[in-house]
Amino acid sequence: MATIPDNVPEHNLHVDYVICYSFGDVDRSQAIEQLEKLLQALAQVGLQVEVRQGDESSLLVFVKASERRLKRAVYRSRVRDWLYGIRNAEPTPSNSTEPQTEAERLRVINHMITLPKEEGGAAITPNHGEWKNVTAVFPLHDVDTNKKWIRDWSSKTFLSDDDLDQIRNKFGESVGFYFAFLQSYFRFLIFPAVFGFSCWFLLGGYSIIYTIVNCLWCIIFVEYWKRQEVDLSCRWQTKNVSAVRTKRREFKAEKEVRDEGTGEMRGVFPATKRMQRQLLQIPFALLAAIALGAIIATCFAIEIFISELYNGPLKTYLIFIPTILVSALVPTMSAILTSIATKLNDHENHETSDAYDVALTQKVFVINFITSYMPIFLTAFVYVPFASRIVPYLDVFHLTVRPFVSKEHAVAKRSHFQIDPARLRNQVVYFTVTAQIVGFAMETIVPYIKQHALRKYKKYNKERNGKMDRNGDKESPERPVVSFDDPAEEVQFLTRVRNEVELSEYDVTADLREMCIQFGYLALFSPTWPLVPLSFFVNNWVELRSDFFKICMEFRRPVPLRTDTIGPWLDSLGFLSWVGSITSAALLYMFSGNKQHGPNGEPTDIKGWALLLTIFFSEHLYLIVRYAVRAAMARIEPPNSRKERAERYLMRKRYLESTTTAEVDEDKDEDDVTSMAQSTDISRKSLEDDARRASLHGADPATRFWMHQRGWTESAKIGAGIIQAQPTNGGVKKQQ
Amino acid sequence: MATIPDNVPEHNLHVDYVICYSFGDVDRSQAIEQLEKLLQALAQVGLQVEVRQGDESSLLVFVKASERRLKRAVYRSRVRDWLYGIRNAEPTPSNSTEPQTEAERLRVINHMITLPKEEGGAAITPNHGEWKNVTAVFPLHDVDTNKKWIRDWSSKTFLSDDDLDQIRNKFGESVGFYFAFLQSYFRFLIFPAVFGFSCWFLLGGYSIIYTIVNCLWCIIFVEYWKRQEVDLSCRWQTKNVSAVRTKRREFKAEKEVRDEGTGEMRGVFPATKRMQRQLLQIPFALLAAIALGAIIATCFAIEIFISELYNGPLKTYLIFIPTILVSALVPTMSAILTSIATKLNDHENHETSDAYDVALTQKVFVINFITSYMPIFLTAFVYVPFASRIVPYLDVFHLTVRPFVSKEHAVAKRSHFQIDPARLRNQVVYFTVTAQIVGFAMETIVPYIKQHALRKYKKYNKERNGKMDRNGDKESPERPVVSFDDPAEEVQFLTRVRNEVELSEYDVTADLREMCIQFGYLALFSPTWPLVPLSFFVNNWVELRSDFFKICMEFRRPVPLRTDTIGPWLDSLGFLSWVGSITSAALLYMFSGNKQHGPNGEPTDIKGWALLLTIFFSEHLYLIVRYAVRAAMARIEPPNSRKERAERYLMRKRYLESTTTAEVDEDKDEDDVTSMAQSTDISRKSLEDDARRASLHGADPATRFWMHQRGWTESAKIGAGIIQAQPTNGGVKKQQ
Repeated sequence: MATIPDNVPEHNLHVDYVICYSFGDVDRSQAIEQLEKLLQALAQVGLQVEVRQGDESSLLVFVKASERRLKRAVYRSRVRDWLYGIRNAEPTPSNSTEPQTEAERLRVINHMITLPKEEGGAAITPNHGEWKNVTAVFPLHDVDTNKKWIRDWSSKTFLSDDDLDQIRNKFGESVGFYFAFLQSYFRFLIFPAVFGFSCWFLLGGYSIIYTIVNCLWCIIFVEYWKRQEVDLSCRWQTKNVSAVRTKRREFKAEKEVRDEGTGEMRGVFPATKRMQRQLLQIPFALLAAIALGAIIATCFAIEIFISELYNGPLKTYLIFIPTILVSALVPTMSAILTSIATKLNDHENHETSDAYDVALTQKVFVINFITSYMPIFLTAFVYVPFASRIVPYLDVFHLTVRPFVSKEHAVAKRSHFQIDPARLRNQVVYFTVTAQIVGFAMETIVPYIKQHALRKYKKYNKERNGKMDRNGDKESPERPVVSFDDPAEEVQFLTRVRNEVELSEYDVTADLREMCIQFGYLALFSPTWPLVPLSFFVNNWVELRSDFFKICMEFRRPVPLRTDTIGPWLDSLGFLSWVGSITSAALLYMFSGNKQHGPNGEPTDIKGWALLLTIFFSEHLYLIVRYAVRAAMARIEPPNSRKERAERYLMRKRYLESTTTAEVDEDKDEDDVTSMAQSTDISRKSLEDDARRASLHGADPATRFWMHQRGWTESAKIGAGIIQAQPTNGGVKKQQ
Repeated sequence: MATIPDNVPEHNLHVDYVICYSFGDVDRSQAIEQLEKLLQALAQVGLQVEVRQGDESSLLVFVKASERRLKRAVYRSRVRDWLYGIRNAEPTPSNSTEPQTEAERLRVINHMITLPKEEGGAAITPNHGEWKNVTAVFPLHDVDTNKKWIRDWSSKTFLSDDDLDQIRNKFGESVGFYFAFLQSYFRFLIFPAVFGFSCWFLLGGYSIIYTIVNCLWCIIFVEYWKRQEVDLSCRWQTKNVSAVRTKRREFKAEKEVRDEGTGEMRGVFPATKRMQRQLLQIPFALLAAIALGAIIATCFAIEIFISELYNGPLKTYLIFIPTILVSALVPTMSAILTSIATKLNDHENHETSDAYDVALTQKVFVINFITSYMPIFLTAFVYVPFASRIVPYLDVFHLTVRPFVSKEHAVAKRSHFQIDPARLRNQVVYFTVTAQIVGFAMETIVPYIKQHALRKYKKYNKERNGKMDRNGDKESPERPVVSFDDPAEEVQFLTRVRNEVELSEYDVTADLREMCIQFGYLALFSPTWPLVPLSFFVNNWVELRSDFFKICMEFRRPVPLRTDTIGPWLDSLGFLSWVGSITSAALLYMFSGNKQHGPNGEPTDIKGWALLLTIFFSEHLYLIVRYAVRAAMARIEPPNSRKERAERYLMRKRYLESTTTAEVDEDKDEDDVTSMAQSTDISRKSLEDDARRASLHGADPATRFWMHQRGWTESAKIGAGIIQAQPTNGGVKKQQ
């Protein structure tokens, strides 16, 4: 017990993992049998267990790793890392006692619990197969540290590298990468926030300078982050970590094939078949575009109709219809589409979880792209240029010519229809300010309040039941067993654990997606309203803290995962920044300057060819600049990467030197031979004679060729002879 | 001597390298001193030498590696490869005797000669520094094998993988990659050749089907080749070879810095400074475009003026003026620009030769792009749409209204100016057929004839001088010394070596550039004339053979270089294929179908916006398809890459197993302990009592927590107790 490192918090009673074992829905004897199996499996890999009651139908199995077995597992995991090129130096059993981070400890113990038996784990697969009853495996929050950090960070503007390292040490690289990204993004936003504010103040919207700077900033940020990823992955020793791929449990092999190389049986699924299935993505994307597009466009049309055309009764109330419709239908449709996407993704039958996640992220991104940006696209590229032509058709039911208003009045209204030029800006403001605040509330505050209310309600319920208990039957089925049999000193601890069990699992991709979509608004539409980056800057200061608060308070502590990237979201960022070069140019051309306006406020002097030419140039300029920035970034080596390279270089050098040293003795022998050959002073003539003699004795031509001169001194003499036989200067001699 | 492997050709008398030492322009004694140094340096690294006379002012130093030292150098080189991840298995001194290819042998010996002393070489740097007199270091051609291959290949359509392996074994991976590329390209051309012919026959030029298929083919070919590169680099064990970078001798460090990681002094040149210098590329590209563009455009204008406008005297002769001008000026200007590019590149001061080559290739590509494609661009996108507006201005000197013709006639002529619709096609035919044949002749046949004529002339000269010698003074300065002192049996061999010395060095990038430019015509302009791929197919059959012939007969045998790619040309291919998606769409829109023509034959219904929209869609479709093809290609693992991965997997598995085996004994001990704990049947109650007692004795809470249950069996019992204490089914019990 004395060997437990200091970084394991004392108040978690040295508990590494909590396994939640539910027995509510199975036969009692079966449940007991399965529990025994579970405990035995854990004990076999060297994990100590303690059982306590969870809620009415679950047990809490507390798990602690024996230090000896843990040390061995750490060593094994490091050897594997070394073999896959994640670590540079070969680990030895002795140096595996070096200080581990808490994340490494938890990761290795998680591997001990979940890895298949042949790789040295207990093969516990939560919610899956024979371990269906194991509903959760998670570490416990380090409450004190979390509280301290939340307090500390609220008084800082930027997190230091050290803070990020701390996050990584507690929650693993995957969460660490998210916060590092958020921090980089936040820090990078300073410039456009200041610049955007100045532009807004001095030049207003649609300023060409702001647009160019914004596009350039997007390129630099994306490329900078790529570089930063390399740097971080060197710093956190997770470079190439994606090479260690874990097979998905759900992967269904089509046939077993003997691998030619390794000689093992291996389940395969033909890549071509998977690609055929992936083709379904195209109809899916179309479906998503049409389904969501139809909803959004319809609501949009209704809104315009009601707000700008309709003038009948109840207008004050009707105006809320589209908002209600959008709020109700879009999330529903998104949920449906997401579930279709997940099914499609399952159907694609990916072999590794990485591939699965990437494929799913792509599909989810399509849905998000449509829901997030389509309303603005509709306003900018459909409503403004074409509204005067389309809007009159909106009045399909001739509501405006209903008896409520006189026909003449209605017609007059219709001809008075005016395109609202501020509409686009207002929409951008809505999405980049209001929606962000609403999102923050929905994501952090509401769940927190809900959680507390629920706990209060439960407590109240319990107390009421407790009172009833004291009066009634001790064996009453309604009796809450929450504190049943708890030793007095553990009551507080067990209550906390039971609360944590009830929390849901944290998924970092949801937060990454949010940031990625946010970046999209900046890249795509910020020329409309240059205060966008300022708004995001403020928002992200809060976001960073609230996300950390969320992880600590509203989710179970995540199992540390290693990664060397923010994954497919990086591609999404690049894609958005590219599309931004197109939309920015289009917005700028269409809305900047003093365009002539038609009678209904529609711009009349937008030329198709000029718009397309603007886009063409803007896009290609973007690509050229991106190429240049990328090339420039590639030249500047990130500091940790340089360090890592130096380490590797030193390792190689040591190794090469050790092989060279072994040669030195041999060299000496050989040198002696050479010098001996030099010292025996054989005349050139006699050697040449030797050769001739050898030729007489029938040696092959090659042997004879190489016997003319023995040793380099001989060759030098003969060479000198040839040189001296030549005239010093042909020209001079010729004149003789 | 008995250990020399069979693959070293006997008729080269076991000579590995020939070093050409020139003493014509230095002081005699200095030359002798330097020669001694050279021979000593070679002998010290374990190379045997023989000196023979070269021509009047040079010596031939024949070099052969001692087998023991060579074996050691091979081992060292393999260790280095292993450390850099090029080889999977760690080499041991004993397994380094495995059969080497001739290319590996020659490469290692070349390293022995050229590497710096601290890396175990003799530090001979031909034409540089103190070794200025060493004018060439090259291996000798394997004449018999070369002849055999030339004969064999002329009767085959495709080279087999085995043939490519043979090339690689003889000439190294760099040449091997070129031939592999040429072969892949040739094989891939079958489809567009057949399809193009069909389209030409059935649909004529500007067929939309052909254009789409052609673009798709370009994408697939480029992506296929990328995959093929991976495959080949696994097959030839050169994966990651670019990680072993050789420092350029010409690199000038700005300052010496102590490397923090390695603690060594290291010359550095700031990347930012280099980038500033690289910005000069932009004015350079502009200069190249303007200089070459001006020449080409002027000649083009003159040609149009003379051929289509001018009708005065001497037209038959004047018509050749533009051709002569282009042939004279463009290569001159290219040469000037190339020398500027080289100077710029030197100025950029790259640290490694790889970086230098990449940067130079990019600059050369710009020049080639302009010279090769600008004439067609001018015809397609300037002449055809704008000729009727521009052409009248060409007559700046009013040559057409000179007294030779009546004014009326001239005016009539001018108004009769007709755009020649076949001009574009003729130009494409010229560049893809005629120019290819001319290029082949200039590149292969002419030098061969020149070489033979020169040798004949020299021989004739020699014989004449020989006759004179017999009559005149033996010491005459004009006396050719070619066969001076040669032993009779070596005359033939030495003559061959002297001929090879006179050849120039082979540079594979020139051939790659040629292929890359050829691919450009296909990607950019082939919709104009769908027979382009057929022409290239025929041409490349010849090209492959003639290039091999060229390497064997017209160049010194190249020193084997390792590579895992065709280098920056791959990017050029991708770029050309991308630009192709733009030009193809533009050509198709402008020239296909029955466009209305104006009075002068100019197309009148080309709409700017429609053209731009076509280009926009075509380009983005191209990018999407490329993304999809890339994703699909990434899924299909090349066979050799799979093999390599399996090998690595096996290596890892073996290693991990060896660490696991070491653990088994420990495990056994531990298991005994566990089973003992299980066998001692301590009742639950007594244990719980233990815990309570411990708490009384003041142990800390964590210790007490973990002392409740001893061993997993205890935990299982308590868990079973809790489970059994619960009602089986809450609902059922409630009804009681």
